[in-house]
Amino acid sequence: MNTRTNLPAVERYMLSCMSDSAHDAEHIYRVLNNALHIAEYESGVDIDLLTAACLLHDIGRAEQFADPKICHAACGAQKAYKWLVENGYSEEFSKEVKNCIETHRFRSAISPRSIEAKILFDADNLDVCGAVGIARTLLYAGHVSTPLYALTENGDVSDGSEDTDAWTFFREYKFKLEKACEIFYTKRGSKLSVKRRNAARKFYEALLAEVRECYADYD
Amino acid sequence: MNTRTNLPAVERYMLSCMSDSAHDAEHIYRVLNNALHIAEYESGVDIDLLTAACLLHDIGRAEQFADPKICHAACGAQKAYKWLVENGYSEEFSKEVKNCIETHRFRSAISPRSIEAKILFDADNLDVCGAVGIARTLLYAGHVSTPLYALTENGDVSDGSEDTDAWTFFREYKFKLEKACEIFYTKRGSKLSVKRRNAARKFYEALLAEVRECYADYD
Repeated sequence: MNTRTNLPAVERYMLSCMSDSAHDAEHIYRVLNNALHIAEYESGVDIDLLTAACLLHDIGRAEQFADPKICHAACGAQKAYKWLVENGYSEEFSKEVKNCIETHRFRSAISPRSIEAKILFDADNLDVCGAVGIARTLLYAGHVSTPLYALTENGDVSDGSEDTDAWTFFREYKFKLEKACEIFYTKRGSKLSVKRRNAARKFYEALLAEVRECYADYD
Repeated sequence: MNTRTNLPAVERYMLSCMSDSAHDAEHIYRVLNNALHIAEYESGVDIDLLTAACLLHDIGRAEQFADPKICHAACGAQKAYKWLVENGYSEEFSKEVKNCIETHRFRSAISPRSIEAKILFDADNLDVCGAVGIARTLLYAGHVSTPLYALTENGDVSDGSEDTDAWTFFREYKFKLEKACEIFYTKRGSKLSVKRRNAARKFYEALLAEVRECYADYD
């Protein structure tokens, strides 16, 4: 299947909603392709539903960026439901897509229930783990002008685990990227995350060592 | 020496000129500390001159960001010279600082001549090599909203070596980060770059493999 031309109107709507380079259209295509790959290892998956959910899962990003109190998953789920119903999709289909989008967020309190929701969660989470998750987090940090790290009261570089006052890349690694790799709902998603997790950890460790070297005595 | 309080007026002027998170004050302090470390392995270094040059080397960034035709090294050198002379530094000292800043840029046509200019170049280049160079490049890519990679006509992920039409992170890795590690003017700088270069290459290779996996068949 050519994922690029499936559900073309849904895809066009998604493209009209994209904003920063950490959540651009290529992120959406990577998630969609991850999802279609994971779906091959599961049974009873509604591929059209999964595709629509993948294409639309981040359309609430611009709203969250404009107002951080807005959750892009909740907002995107509502937007997707409204757009689908208005564009002739059935109530049932639109509601299922809404449910998938609502539960795709790592920070969400609600867990994914349907197999399509579980696959979307894992497919998106693969783009959080690994070098690609590191790269996207740094792109976003640059977009919102936040720093790599904070210094402790002693002038040492904090590893992120105690950066409660300020958002830093190291904090995001410790509180999101490192933990994200522990949560997968499908066997295939979990398996694919292992190599990625190692690549991310190696980068974090190398970066921490390099910057610490610049604030302390060199070896 | 407490590098944080040396030449305090120069430091305050530097802080008033900082902008994006890839070239923030912490970058300046890392470069300064790299430079002071390298200086320990060289003889005849004017530490005050080196410190002033390190603190002021990126003060032309905002001008280059507003107008990419402006070279931040040339612009920053002029700004530094003007500010130093106006603030009571000698003509000779101000001119030497200007020369260091003019030649610190990787893309500059002029090579560093004085030992202080060579050390500044290497100290800044260490912040380009390695995981820290990867992180800063991604922060900057997010700041100016450019993508990680481009797709070839066949829909494959380009490794960056042939991305002549668009700026991408992979292109920046291939044309700047990978090449930067080959140019060092001091033995100590060159030695420190080896481990960093390996960390950067591993990240690039992992990221390329991960994103290519999303556009092709999975292993």
